Amino acid sequence: MLRKNRLFTPGPTPLLPAAQTAMASFTAHHRTADFRALFQRVLADMKDFIGTRNDVLVLACSGTGVMEASISNLTSPGDKVLVLTAGKFGERWTGLAKAFRCNVEVVNVPYGETFSLNDIQTKLTPDVRAVFMQATESSTGVRHDVEGIAKIVRANGADTLLVVDAITGLGTTHLDVDRWGVDFIIGGSQKALMIPPGLAYCAVSERAWQRMETTSSPRFYFDLRKERKSAAKGESAYTPATSLFAALGAALEFIRQMGNGDLSKGREALVNNAELCAEMTRAGVQALGLKLFAASPAAALTAVCSPAGLDSGKIIKEFRESFDAVVANGQGEMKGQMFRIAHIGYYDYLDTIGILAALEHVLTRCTGKAVEYGAAVRAAQEVYAREMSKKRQLVGA
Amino acid sequence: MLRKNRLFTPGPTPLLPAAQTAMASFTAHHRTADFRALFQRVLADMKDFIGTRNDVLVLACSGTGVMEASISNLTSPGDKVLVLTAGKFGERWTGLAKAFRCNVEVVNVPYGETFSLNDIQTKLTPDVRAVFMQATESSTGVRHDVEGIAKIVRANGADTLLVVDAITGLGTTHLDVDRWGVDFIIGGSQKALMIPPGLAYCAVSERAWQRMETTSSPRFYFDLRKERKSAAKGESAYTPATSLFAALGAALEFIRQMGNGDLSKGREALVNNAELCAEMTRAGVQALGLKLFAASPAAALTAVCSPAGLDSGKIIKEFRESFDAVVANGQGEMKGQMFRIAHIGYYDYLDTIGILAALEHVLTRCTGKAVEYGAAVRAAQEVYAREMSKKRQLVGA
Repeated sequence: MLRKNRLFTPGPTPLLPAAQTAMASFTAHHRTADFRALFQRVLADMKDFIGTRNDVLVLACSGTGVMEASISNLTSPGDKVLVLTAGKFGERWTGLAKAFRCNVEVVNVPYGETFSLNDIQTKLTPDVRAVFMQATESSTGVRHDVEGIAKIVRANGADTLLVVDAITGLGTTHLDVDRWGVDFIIGGSQKALMIPPGLAYCAVSERAWQRMETTSSPRFYFDLRKERKSAAKGESAYTPATSLFAALGAALEFIRQMGNGDLSKGREALVNNAELCAEMTRAGVQALGLKLFAASPAAALTAVCSPAGLDSGKIIKEFRESFDAVVANGQGEMKGQMFRIAHIGYYDYLDTIGILAALEHVLTRCTGKAVEYGAAVRAAQEVYAREMSKKRQLVGA
Repeated sequence: MLRKNRLFTPGPTPLLPAAQTAMASFTAHHRTADFRALFQRVLADMKDFIGTRNDVLVLACSGTGVMEASISNLTSPGDKVLVLTAGKFGERWTGLAKAFRCNVEVVNVPYGETFSLNDIQTKLTPDVRAVFMQATESSTGVRHDVEGIAKIVRANGADTLLVVDAITGLGTTHLDVDRWGVDFIIGGSQKALMIPPGLAYCAVSERAWQRMETTSSPRFYFDLRKERKSAAKGESAYTPATSLFAALGAALEFIRQMGNGDLSKGREALVNNAELCAEMTRAGVQALGLKLFAASPAAALTAVCSPAGLDSGKIIKEFRESFDAVVANGQGEMKGQMFRIAHIGYYDYLDTIGILAALEHVLTRCTGKAVEYGAAVRAAQEVYAREMSKKRQLVGA
């Protein structure tokens, strides 16, 4: 049977065809009126995509580049910072903060769990210059309580900045950046934006811009004040990844159409879509007797524990060989213990049902035990039908 | 008359259609055997493209990102470094070295000129830890003597590293990286490689790798030792710009075909092509009575002085409005004083003749003085015919 290569990984994600076309045919030079118009439209639209009035910058790098930018622009060597870590990407914050000589305090919880606000409160002394966290930890599928954490960070005073890596969170999680007081939020192109990797972005609060006036960590390529100054003139400080900008423009247009011409509504629709895909997937895998890894699961991806005694690498391999579907293994110390199915961006009903049906075959083959065909699919369909009926009632009321 | 949009700018440059197609249709995840195969093939091919046996790394950033990587990986705060500057990109070295707290010595010559080896020798004390230069200064069209400078840097001892920004130099200039002893050479995707911006690369000598064992400048996203370790396993440390890698694979294949299946010969052919385009252009503009800005002109681009009293912005605008051809203005303090026509990568005879013919109309309109139509074209044709006849004689002999 024909097999289409499909990504169910938490980035890169399936590409929007309109963005692929835009990318392939774009040839404009970056110091022209044509490109400036695209650049300015994209930066303005990105505010609506993120849901913020703060200035947005888009840089040529992966998400880790903008994570570094938040550290090198917002801290000076010796600054006390608090890192919240619950997985591989939390650990990246620690590595980055140490590389830039911060005095790093850590709230560390085991993979699969999230933070207690009390533990954070205890370590959140007045001298903490910034708190670094993930909105969703892609290595474990956990959703962290950005709103709750923002509340206690804000209560700590204006001298403590909150930096949120929402690389997989943006477009999959409802985030009220400005109202919650998130000072620096980070995203990447290869996630809910449905385009290839190579761009990363951030929205920066006035408090964070003020901080940059006094910090002394070395930065040049990621000097955000320089980027902001250029952006005000419709340009990037250094050569931008023009073809990816063209793809991003097309993706934002698609999201606007999802919101019937309103990009903010499109963002909401995209998040709701991820949430429904995730809920269907959770119901499906649980109907097969599988356990979720995350106590507080994100809509970005569903991390599923491998059945006892079965290396999840076999499941990944079987998905690949039988269906050419790329499902993610666990990362780092979690490798072999879980598989992860993403719902970030460009996924629909057929994708979701199809991968669950495929999982039924995959499990049968990997465990040697018969699975009741259709069990996961039916559970997912029930979630879908219930959701659609709720929606119809809302419209009727 | 129909006008095709054409770039004659020193990056971004005209795109290779095969690369555009490869980029648009590429969807593989970066942690798969398919991508690892592409990644390893590209890194191996890049050695032949650069002409080195040193390890090559390709990163998701613009060229400035890898310039920063050379500084942050090869120096510690307080290190004495020597920057050779003769234009805007030389000045970028100074900015970068200062941002990373180097003790910066400078050999500074006016825009349009190149360095005297004596001046360099005088400042090249034994305690200089690294020398930073451009192969060709894109802001002025000048070619620097990398071979001559490398000779005196190497004579200074193994403790002085030579770092060459060859972003516009690679693929337009014959460079013998390993024989000359260049420790760190830098390129970008949107130049002779004929693909969009978003990737930058470097080849790093063993001496330079050794240096990184002891340097202490902060780096994380650009930590080259980490990248090298990942590359040995066929992966990048952070998410690579996958679609641009696919484009790069296609471009390297095209260059290999230019060399009849030999990528090193393809590189030579690409450089010879740029040299012929440049020589034709120089002959053409001089036939119109225009003056070259660079005393030692690079093949990457031809910088032409604007006729006395004429703002070169008018020439740029007329090229754009009448022919939809994008020619570059001067940069920084040179704005208004020159226009720059690039020969980097994907240019052929028709492009070269066409832009010279267009220049004849542009000049007539901008100066109000009649230009003898065909004068620039004929001068270029004579260069071409002479070159072809030389080549035929070589083949015949």
